[in-house]
Amino acid sequence: MLNGLERLVGVWEGTGRGVYPTIEPFTYGERVEFSHHGKPFLLYRQTTWTDGADRQPLHTETGYFRPGPDDGVEAVIAQPTGISEILTGSWDGTTVRLSTRSVGLTPSAKEVRTVERILEVGDEELTYQLWMEAVGQPHQIHLAAHLQRLPS
Amino acid sequence: MLNGLERLVGVWEGTGRGVYPTIEPFTYGERVEFSHHGKPFLLYRQTTWTDGADRQPLHTETGYFRPGPDDGVEAVIAQPTGISEILTGSWDGTTVRLSTRSVGLTPSAKEVRTVERILEVGDEELTYQLWMEAVGQPHQIHLAAHLQRLPS
Repeated sequence: MLNGLERLVGVWEGTGRGVYPTIEPFTYGERVEFSHHGKPFLLYRQTTWTDGADRQPLHTETGYFRPGPDDGVEAVIAQPTGISEILTGSWDGTTVRLSTRSVGLTPSAKEVRTVERILEVGDEELTYQLWMEAVGQPHQIHLAAHLQRLPS
Repeated sequence: MLNGLERLVGVWEGTGRGVYPTIEPFTYGERVEFSHHGKPFLLYRQTTWTDGADRQPLHTETGYFRPGPDDGVEAVIAQPTGISEILTGSWDGTTVRLSTRSVGLTPSAKEVRTVERILEVGDEELTYQLWMEAVGQPHQIHLAAHLQRLPS
């Protein structure tokens, strides 16, 4: 039903690093959850927080991943900053490679043009990179994180 | 911070009715949750199920509502059927009226062109209508539901 994407199911926590020409580099804590509720898609939920003792909330996003045509993957992601992503790509049993087919923006959202998400899943580790073209800058890496599976 | 949208916060359950020229009319059970986690937006989560004793899952969607410019409202909604909505509209303290500024579709999604969502919130009741232009049909009502606030 999920063409092997069930490997993503679980709760994952770890740390990441963000860079972009328009901001100071930063590190963050992160929790990702993929869950399956019986239908042929996964629910995706993510939150990040500031590194350090005070642990202030940073970003959050949510959406769905599902098998697409031709052994591909489709994802729909919503961000509270007024951004939606429609992504398509490939899945080889280890790595999900997704690129935006379209990005939706509310009037007050920052201008994001393309997003590329690469997730590599092992039995106990989930790593990802997020690349984007945004706010007038060329497509480049923005986030890289390394997460560990939490005991269920 | 939320310009009064906190009235939506809570868990709401009830029933709805769906119609569209391409389908048989149907009734459904529904649970909607709006939650606030400290930042200036609400997390929205929704599930519906078949009417009757077996209660099979039907639809689900998730996303965010937040105040927009000029006392308006913005929403970003993701659907596992491969659809994203970027919506903007108005909020008068009782009724949220949202229309899609853009709809994003994955290659395998049904063709949805416009969505209009009207939510009316009371202290103990939440009712909504969803209108849409989809699969070659003109813009018209698709869903109407009446939900009650669950005790917290």
